[in-house]
Amino acid sequence: MKIEPLTAKPSKEELGTRLEKVRELMEKQKLDYYVSFSPTNIYYLTNFANIVHERPFILVIPKKGTLKMVCPLLESTHVKTRARCDLDYVIYYEFPAPEGQNWYNVYRPLFKDGDRIGIESAMPAGILKETRGTTVMTNIIEEVRVIKTDYEIGRTVHACLVVDEGMKKLLELTRVGVPIITIYSGLVQAMMAKALIEVPDINLMASKFQGAVWPPSISHDPHIIPTPFMAMEEGGPSCSIVGATVDGYGVEIERTLFLEYVPDHAKKLFDIMMKGRALAYKLAQPGTVLEEIDKQVRQVFIDAGYEKNIIHRTGHGFGITGHEDPFLALGDKRKLAPGMIVSIEPGIYFKGQGGYRHSDTVLITENGNLKLTHAPEQLEELLFKK
Amino acid sequence: MKIEPLTAKPSKEELGTRLEKVRELMEKQKLDYYVSFSPTNIYYLTNFANIVHERPFILVIPKKGTLKMVCPLLESTHVKTRARCDLDYVIYYEFPAPEGQNWYNVYRPLFKDGDRIGIESAMPAGILKETRGTTVMTNIIEEVRVIKTDYEIGRTVHACLVVDEGMKKLLELTRVGVPIITIYSGLVQAMMAKALIEVPDINLMASKFQGAVWPPSISHDPHIIPTPFMAMEEGGPSCSIVGATVDGYGVEIERTLFLEYVPDHAKKLFDIMMKGRALAYKLAQPGTVLEEIDKQVRQVFIDAGYEKNIIHRTGHGFGITGHEDPFLALGDKRKLAPGMIVSIEPGIYFKGQGGYRHSDTVLITENGNLKLTHAPEQLEELLFKK
Repeated sequence: MKIEPLTAKPSKEELGTRLEKVRELMEKQKLDYYVSFSPTNIYYLTNFANIVHERPFILVIPKKGTLKMVCPLLESTHVKTRARCDLDYVIYYEFPAPEGQNWYNVYRPLFKDGDRIGIESAMPAGILKETRGTTVMTNIIEEVRVIKTDYEIGRTVHACLVVDEGMKKLLELTRVGVPIITIYSGLVQAMMAKALIEVPDINLMASKFQGAVWPPSISHDPHIIPTPFMAMEEGGPSCSIVGATVDGYGVEIERTLFLEYVPDHAKKLFDIMMKGRALAYKLAQPGTVLEEIDKQVRQVFIDAGYEKNIIHRTGHGFGITGHEDPFLALGDKRKLAPGMIVSIEPGIYFKGQGGYRHSDTVLITENGNLKLTHAPEQLEELLFKK
Repeated sequence: MKIEPLTAKPSKEELGTRLEKVRELMEKQKLDYYVSFSPTNIYYLTNFANIVHERPFILVIPKKGTLKMVCPLLESTHVKTRARCDLDYVIYYEFPAPEGQNWYNVYRPLFKDGDRIGIESAMPAGILKETRGTTVMTNIIEEVRVIKTDYEIGRTVHACLVVDEGMKKLLELTRVGVPIITIYSGLVQAMMAKALIEVPDINLMASKFQGAVWPPSISHDPHIIPTPFMAMEEGGPSCSIVGATVDGYGVEIERTLFLEYVPDHAKKLFDIMMKGRALAYKLAQPGTVLEEIDKQVRQVFIDAGYEKNIIHRTGHGFGITGHEDPFLALGDKRKLAPGMIVSIEPGIYFKGQGGYRHSDTVLITENGNLKLTHAPEQLEELLFKK
């Protein structure tokens, strides 16, 4: 397992390796074709990124031979300039189109009635309807994506350097009275500048840079979206999030922080969060069942009397997106394995006081795990004064 | 029809009017429920914006009574702070979750086996599978969205002022040698600043600001995505795009422009594009069949000998997104009606020379149409020198 930042586009061989793994699962499930509509799955196999809109892009993977890309005329050269694997183009004119020239007119004939066709659970009903043969819902591309290749690890290591830069800027800018929009603008610019310099041919359709700080009056509620002019508040805990997708690789770093002073009650709660977090890192080893980590970390919080203050799982996977399989959560019975990349972010939340959570992007290695994001972690390092 | 910029959030009455129209169509189609998973449809009816990820949000519209929102615990206060209509919350714990606590465990019991349930063509297969009763694929929310209320017109008029500002900045910055990223950064900042000042409680999850210029070496290919450091080239035509979604209202403005000089061959082609465009405006009246506009505009280009240079339809609708029903395209047999908002953007494209296209956001009125975006249109106004 090589752990060095990479910025080059994927080679044809890299994409070939991914396709081979998908086809192994297709063979096991006796599929003649697998159909992908998910832009992230299509990106994974082709390096072409699109946004879902009324003109569909559909990737058809036969069990043997060249992949077929159903796409609109207007986008065909866009696909050709980005795709880094062989593709047979199945081009339709427009959406809508005159009778006989619609996307389904070129899509339906790709299959025979007797074919067995794997589909994603995300496949839209409108495309499912036009898919002939026997369809089997099976998320095999997502399953392959769970274990990263050395190339993907390298790209993720690089993306982590970008969010590290964003977090550094966030910690510089976050002071009492500063509005969220100032922090947001500063960290987005810092990350974008780094990404653009280091990946000059970056695909902005596969890139996103964001971050914010939830002051203590709302940090108990991590999925509320703060309004832009909300100002930083003294005391704490404030919860900060920096996330990015850098040319197709999604990662995050999050820190709990304090401004001017640490309220008396906060020290103990911060320590309990850190205790749950330390246990999660200890358990994050190849072979551990994913839900077991969540279960044991929850027990730390439950034993401390804070069962009601747990409002989310311990972590989630990263890859092309910043939120994907596998999950460090009750109900995920898979085992951790080398090459998985996950967040470790147990948290506890108190209405009227705030929330406590650090998150990092963590690689599972042969022997344990390796944190790929870097920022201060201890309470005394996370107190900032004007 | 009032045509004044608005920036306030929608009232409960406004959302009630929209729901009523959806329910009229539900009644016509004898539906007991309509299920919406599309974030734009959910936003349209509730004012809550979400991004699709592994934790589903599902809006269930019964033929009578309060709407039900299936959502994860972690997001429930987020929904409550944004939604501006009554909602019954159907909350599940997490994704994944322990046996019996998953989203489908709370979703399935909302229906009986005999119910007739309308679904979107965008509904994911994985959600369709858990939807009991008889499902009928019918995009009724999209159908209602086609005709805008006075409130939506006002919000769109405001969004157009934002893209006008972006286009102004783009025309200021676009000079020979300037890299695309400089133009992009400048226009994004200009639009974002205007939007933030005028809509201080803007929902950034329902907002997006973007734009770029395709220099003549690539402007024949409008859906190729230029790389950030590509520099502006002399001559032309360059094609520029400025688009924004401002607190949930998507619009665009696009201009063909020239740097330093206008090549000899370009004048004639620019004029033909303008001739097709003028015809489209003339035809864009209540009662005109949408495909008829596309057909007649195409004929202008065909008569001039440029059939092969038409690579897209004449226009598309705007609303919550920058691309939606209805379409000024062959195959769309609906009629234009007051309250529709569409792009008018016929174009012709020449490999090795470039593309010719202006686009504006246009409101269909009782008597004709009204351009809501504003920027120079004539060739002599669109030549910029250092």
